[in-house]
Amino acid sequence: MECEICNLSNNNKNFIFETKFWKVYLAYEQYYLGRCVVQLKRHCRDFTELKKEELLDFLKVVKKLEKAIRKSFNPQLFNWSCLMNNAFKFKKPNPYIHFHVRPRYKREIEFAGLTFKDQEFAHHYDNKKKRYVNKDVLMKIKEKIKEDL
Amino acid sequence: MECEICNLSNNNKNFIFETKFWKVYLAYEQYYLGRCVVQLKRHCRDFTELKKEELLDFLKVVKKLEKAIRKSFNPQLFNWSCLMNNAFKFKKPNPYIHFHVRPRYKREIEFAGLTFKDQEFAHHYDNKKKRYVNKDVLMKIKEKIKEDL
Repeated sequence: MECEICNLSNNNKNFIFETKFWKVYLAYEQYYLGRCVVQLKRHCRDFTELKKEELLDFLKVVKKLEKAIRKSFNPQLFNWSCLMNNAFKFKKPNPYIHFHVRPRYKREIEFAGLTFKDQEFAHHYDNKKKRYVNKDVLMKIKEKIKEDL
Repeated sequence: MECEICNLSNNNKNFIFETKFWKVYLAYEQYYLGRCVVQLKRHCRDFTELKKEELLDFLKVVKKLEKAIRKSFNPQLFNWSCLMNNAFKFKKPNPYIHFHVRPRYKREIEFAGLTFKDQEFAHHYDNKKKRYVNKDVLMKIKEKIKEDL
């Protein structure tokens, strides 16, 4: 069973930065250029079990990451979500807290020789559209965001 | 241009509860039974502009609302999102902070003579599936959650 979160935490190649309580990774799926995953460092099953200091630290992550991605790719806004559906594919679900962030773009953007077009701008993101760029491009996106932190 | 958030704030019939900084409304769209919208009381455009005390108060909202909906309808988990796409349909976007919460269900649930089935359980919610129940049912859902607060 593929779990993008587990894959990310085992693959530091996508790692962008960390704070006291959170780690940020570039998502493999890049239909919305700069899509990232923010993962709590400790295993915590539920949003309601987040500690105050973890939540305040999360706000720091949001500010730092949005600022960097705005500098890198100039999106108009960001869609944040905390879903954890995949964990419930298993008989004994073992979810842990992570957030997805999708930058959203009004205009086409060119990066690393590719064109990214957000065809759903101003509408809900389309979860069925997947774009897996090659490793070279993925690392260029990651490095660009890291430079702009 | 329809804005569910504006509709909600002008229609107190869907109001469930409030805290110091947030108001909670039942969403009109109830494909995922108990779907709600949580709206910041002050006009704030961006997640990154949330104040610490507002964010900590939001955690109280999450805890109180999830506990009540669990008691009302016993969902397996909750999907939270902060998107704000609709605001960008306008030439001069004027977003303000709100969160959507969709309870997710492994089993069919009967309520107010209707059957609710989460056909995407353990997968991303389907934003294209809409279920607008009649006012009577909507008020019954709201009252049930209020009773369980």
